[in-house]
Amino acid sequence: MALRDDLLAVGERARRASRLLARLPSPVKDAALRAMADGLEAARPELLEANRADLAAAEAAGLSRALLDRLSLSDAVVASMAQGLREVAAQPDPVGEVVRMWKRPNGLMVGKKRIPLGVIGIIYEARPNVTADAAGLCLKAGNAVILRGGSEAIASNRAIARVLGEASAAAGVPEGAIQVLGVTDREAVLELLRLEDHIDLIIPRGGEGLIRFVTDHSRIPVIKHYKGVCHVFVDASADPAMAEEIVFNAKVQRPSACNAVETLLVHRAAAPVILPRIAERLRRAGVELRGCDETRRLVPWALPATNEDWGAEYVDLILSVRVVDGLDPAIEHIERHGSLHTESIVTADYANAQRFLDEVNSSVVAVNASTRFSDGQQLGLGAEIGISTSKIHSFGPMGAEDLTTTKFVIYGQGQVRE
Amino acid sequence: MALRDDLLAVGERARRASRLLARLPSPVKDAALRAMADGLEAARPELLEANRADLAAAEAAGLSRALLDRLSLSDAVVASMAQGLREVAAQPDPVGEVVRMWKRPNGLMVGKKRIPLGVIGIIYEARPNVTADAAGLCLKAGNAVILRGGSEAIASNRAIARVLGEASAAAGVPEGAIQVLGVTDREAVLELLRLEDHIDLIIPRGGEGLIRFVTDHSRIPVIKHYKGVCHVFVDASADPAMAEEIVFNAKVQRPSACNAVETLLVHRAAAPVILPRIAERLRRAGVELRGCDETRRLVPWALPATNEDWGAEYVDLILSVRVVDGLDPAIEHIERHGSLHTESIVTADYANAQRFLDEVNSSVVAVNASTRFSDGQQLGLGAEIGISTSKIHSFGPMGAEDLTTTKFVIYGQGQVRE
Repeated sequence: MALRDDLLAVGERARRASRLLARLPSPVKDAALRAMADGLEAARPELLEANRADLAAAEAAGLSRALLDRLSLSDAVVASMAQGLREVAAQPDPVGEVVRMWKRPNGLMVGKKRIPLGVIGIIYEARPNVTADAAGLCLKAGNAVILRGGSEAIASNRAIARVLGEASAAAGVPEGAIQVLGVTDREAVLELLRLEDHIDLIIPRGGEGLIRFVTDHSRIPVIKHYKGVCHVFVDASADPAMAEEIVFNAKVQRPSACNAVETLLVHRAAAPVILPRIAERLRRAGVELRGCDETRRLVPWALPATNEDWGAEYVDLILSVRVVDGLDPAIEHIERHGSLHTESIVTADYANAQRFLDEVNSSVVAVNASTRFSDGQQLGLGAEIGISTSKIHSFGPMGAEDLTTTKFVIYGQGQVRE
Repeated sequence: MALRDDLLAVGERARRASRLLARLPSPVKDAALRAMADGLEAARPELLEANRADLAAAEAAGLSRALLDRLSLSDAVVASMAQGLREVAAQPDPVGEVVRMWKRPNGLMVGKKRIPLGVIGIIYEARPNVTADAAGLCLKAGNAVILRGGSEAIASNRAIARVLGEASAAAGVPEGAIQVLGVTDREAVLELLRLEDHIDLIIPRGGEGLIRFVTDHSRIPVIKHYKGVCHVFVDASADPAMAEEIVFNAKVQRPSACNAVETLLVHRAAAPVILPRIAERLRRAGVELRGCDETRRLVPWALPATNEDWGAEYVDLILSVRVVDGLDPAIEHIERHGSLHTESIVTADYANAQRFLDEVNSSVVAVNASTRFSDGQQLGLGAEIGISTSKIHSFGPMGAEDLTTTKFVIYGQGQVRE
């Protein structure tokens, strides 16, 4: 029960802090965010030293190269954490905005006003920079945050948390606003997921296993992001050069990102001209193609696609390619195999552009643009706490505003109900 | 496994219907809603007969008077279901609205566009009119709905569902848009709560036991409403007549409602004048008062309040009363004992009105108005699917718009990411 008691105390501290945070003036929050950025830069040597301890332990434990990469702090990563906090400080404060207000026939003025969610739990793996990014966005939106990072990053996360805590406290942020859990095992996660009276929202960030574990065991609402199986559909009327640039950018610019394209759909009428051209550009960048029969007729070096290729998230220099008979089969393919993340159409046809935007209900739907724009910063939300592929509360990239809710405010003059 | 297979088939039908519903033109949805209303009125004799069968079984099983009341259909209840559907038809369609659109420095036009949630599961008890209300709101917002009512109302629910299904199908609503489960046991609820690939949102409506059961077992997001412990705070500057009217209305107009006031807080400076006056009015209406020591000094017939009275949801002609030293202790009392539902201040003081609206983060916060206005219809949302006291997705009374989400739409001209 000691673990449960410890976590209850963490939850109560967070709840108390959240009441004060909800009323904290914007300039205090923004000054704190800038002080946190300064603090991280000033503490860089000590952060890197803590990180070296994590890296040494991770290497000794035989963690994969990819995981070590994500775990690793550098001068550039620290600078980017600080820069992120300063950008969040420069954003408008979402709290207090009256989204809408209307008058009822009885004279009541009724409005919807933005307020913080309260307490947010972030459960994440590896990347210690999440500690600073998430703490910054939660503070901006007036929420207390409980951060539970992975055991592999515990020294780094603690060092970052200590810097953020000291800098924010000195700037007037209440005690308990930013807490990093010292315990990192699954038992601690389970206990955390039971604190439904203390935590309003859980955001898991990490692999599918972690996200499923959190979803299956949480009594607290969870906003999740399973995977990104993004599609580009090249319509019959697409400009070949534009199609080539968009597909190339969507696949090659950062293949490990969740908004990279995984399946290319090409209209049968455009395929003979456009597909060999795109394929050649991708081949030179080292992309492996896995195509349907028609694709392989036009691009003989493409490997044959199997059924598992439709809906696969490669996060690698691999692209599945299918020739389709038009917009409707393209939309059907996306509905069947997509992950509701991001889809783009390349077209010169007005009606098809509008139909694609209307009928594809993924979280981000684009015309004549790379799927790589599906990102909070790129879309103009400022920093991003994650990308939701479930439709409740938020759908798509989430910024500070998505960490708020609205309450009804009523201005009356003594009205009672008939 | 037969149960699981049956429910999977229900889920798949709903998912298929939801894709068509998302594209259904507003006039078709509205005509269907009106046809459903006409159908209910035309089928009144048969609905009442089915309901008599439920009532007879419930009486034989010894269900309480209150439950029998909620189970019972009458000419007036049928008329009100039909009226509700016609009002929903008359509301604007929330689907397709572009909530906001902005231009990025690279020329991309980025917007947030409303789309249906997809498939909604409603798990409810007793009141068969929920079948029509929920089906209407879900259809309006372009969602498929799976309704699981209680065993005590199965004949009534089936009869209502048959009428709604026939009327809506004739009006062009796809098959599977409105489904009522024939199985009503807890095992069926458990299986339903596991269909996370088929259902996007679960809304439980009923007693706290049902809601806790659903929350504890669902892998699907749940929007819940536990209870309403609503407060009225009468400030020092309150107009005595206004305070009396508001408190009387909030307690007596419908004491069984979740937005009825349960605790009255009175500023010490106002108590000697206002409290005896309010108490006398309530006494004549048969309200039992449970007061703090100071209350009992001013109102000798009040019973002593115990600690359990603060935070109690009476849903009856009982009111707890506490004299407080000012706005801050009033807000602290509400934070400690409230349920985040609805609170109202009666005051003539501008600063205190603003502070109450700012600092009390319940789902509905009012100045100089009865708590009984905390209701979708009263606030101008049209019909109401429930009142959320959790902050995720929706907070407070929920209308058709709360059964939607937004996707990002991007209009590009060939942009790729640098």
